[in-house]
Amino acid sequence: MSILNFFKSKKPDSAAIAKERLQIIVAHERSQRNEPDYLPRLQQELLEVIRKYVEVDQDQVDVALDDSGNCSVLELNITLPGR
Amino acid sequence: MSILNFFKSKKPDSAAIAKERLQIIVAHERSQRNEPDYLPRLQQELLEVIRKYVEVDQDQVDVALDDSGNCSVLELNITLPGR
Repeated sequence: MSILNFFKSKKPDSAAIAKERLQIIVAHERSQRNEPDYLPRLQQELLEVIRKYVEVDQDQVDVALDDSGNCSVLELNITLPGR
Repeated sequence: MSILNFFKSKKPDSAAIAKERLQIIVAHERSQRNEPDYLPRLQQELLEVIRKYVEVDQDQVDVALDDSGNCSVLELNITLPGR
């Protein structure tokens, strides 16, 4: 559960305390290196699911895709609007 | 990108080499402790999105939900069928 520790280890600043954050990480470990990677196509659909539950501003979504060997990692960091 | 290191640090065994794995982590940092947690409802919808791209056996899905203070973490570990 390393991601929980990641959140906990961050020192909150005043802006972070007021806001909510959502982080989605999808990691795909492939058995063969040359398979097609569907993570880039997946990211928009994941956001649409999240939008059913919370309001998400498109410009508050930070997307990173890391492809290293046979492991692809899609990371979405979303700052949710304050209420 | 700690999740990438998590995958890399695991020593592969013969079964792991033949299989593919998909890990989805959704972490929600709430500004207030007593807000409703939508992560449990989210997990089935995330799986339905994943199923559009890959075949997922229901009994190959391991779900963990960790709620600690103002941070909830939903973790889905999926072993994909070998081809």
